[in-house]
Amino acid sequence: MTNSKKLSIISFSGDFDKLTAVFTLATGAGAVGYEVNLFFTFWGLDAIKIKQGRSAVGKGFLPKVFGVFMGGLKSAPVSRLNFGGLSPSIFRHLMRKNNVATLEELVDAAKVLGINFYACEMAMQILGIGKSDLIPEVKDVLGVATFLKLADGGQTLFI
Amino acid sequence: MTNSKKLSIISFSGDFDKLTAVFTLATGAGAVGYEVNLFFTFWGLDAIKIKQGRSAVGKGFLPKVFGVFMGGLKSAPVSRLNFGGLSPSIFRHLMRKNNVATLEELVDAAKVLGINFYACEMAMQILGIGKSDLIPEVKDVLGVATFLKLADGGQTLFI
Amino acid sequence: MTNSKKLSIISFSGDFDKLTAVFTLATGAGAVGYEVNLFFTFWGLDAIKIKQGRSAVGKGFLPKVFGVFMGGLKSAPVSRLNFGGLSPSIFRHLMRKNNVATLEELVDAAKVLGINFYACEMAMQILGIGKSDLIPEVKDVLGVATFLKLADGGQTLFI
Repeated sequence: MTNSKKLSIISFSGDFDKLTAVFTLATGAGAVGYEVNLFFTFWGLDAIKIKQGRSAVGKGFLPKVFGVFMGGLKSAPVSRLNFGGLSPSIFRHLMRKNNVATLEELVDAAKVLGINFYACEMAMQILGIGKSDLIPEVKDVLGVATFLKLADGGQTLFI
Repeated sequence: MTNSKKLSIISFSGDFDKLTAVFTLATGAGAVGYEVNLFFTFWGLDAIKIKQGRSAVGKGFLPKVFGVFMGGLKSAPVSRLNFGGLSPSIFRHLMRKNNVATLEELVDAAKVLGINFYACEMAMQILGIGKSDLIPEVKDVLGVATFLKLADGGQTLFI
Repeated sequence: MTNSKKLSIISFSGDFDKLTAVFTLATGAGAVGYEVNLFFTFWGLDAIKIKQGRSAVGKGFLPKVFGVFMGGLKSAPVSRLNFGGLSPSIFRHLMRKNNVATLEELVDAAKVLGINFYACEMAMQILGIGKSDLIPEVKDVLGVATFLKLADGGQTLFI
């Protein structure tokens, strides 16, 4: 069934600029009445953890190490020209100065717009993350098949 | 409405190899009669600037710095094994040697085939880029909602 | 024609984590009866070479150099926090420990599920790779237009 007002995004990347793209697309579509489904997996899971910042979330030693290195939304690097972590602050500054919503504001807007947040079951297993580690807006923990069914008939992106 | 001959690409990356993928898909689809919509955003905007090369395009100091570092099509790095900037020349050489169109030739072909170039409003605001900084083939500066409407019913990729 | 049970993926990346995403999506969809088409291009071709490991596959000197540096599935780096090549082994360890299929197991599962493997004609030309360099499961070597036609009406991702 084709639903021309449905957008689903597999949010795989943990990069600042790509997460900004995810939430710009999601809120832009949500604002004009699209059903929007975000499926967070791998590095993307970092964006929907409760404990933002460099915290050792995850069961087991290795997942904890990755948790600390990833460090959540506030530490997300830019995928290119990161300049040792300076670039995200530059972009944040440019966004404020030019009256464009920052990443954190976009995430908040996504919640207000009722955009659906889902987390990838397999990636959570690998990284030792439980549902209780994720923000309460996460509606469900899903496998691939269930997500594809949700996305069916709309447009689907991998970011 | 499903239009099986429509391809829309969100061209986010500024990498040489990914831009080559964008224009290979675009010209390949355009050549067999597809409607093709390219939506350039973030690093991807670099590919459609008039001033190619390391020029300080953009309003304000910080956008200018990024402009110089990005440097347009001719300076686009390869996303992997860039070997300090040597790889794009190697690929250009291999493309010529093996009679495959180079990136610049693909961009020219896209123009000839009447492929639609659009630029992302928000990214231009962040990077301080105006419509006059972009090549005249850019048909319009759009927000997310308008682009999604254009892409409706076809296949949409994020590259 | 809309076929809600068709998934096509342009597998462009050679990164361990992104290839894992490709094969997780492919096998997840294949297991619930989807037609799945994988189109390997650029770095992604590395995943379907017969000679895995750091072998000099490819005609000509430069393609051979890239072949050695890419090194196949077993040498695929992680796109982020690669820690000098340590991370893929960590992920492999975590996958085994948490009873998640490893990348190699996912590739085998894809073959068993009858997922369609295609290789990109143009990328093979650039990299000097012939059909005989690829695993026998590769059904065909295709151009963009043919692939888009195969993908028509389903969901298409670029990874």
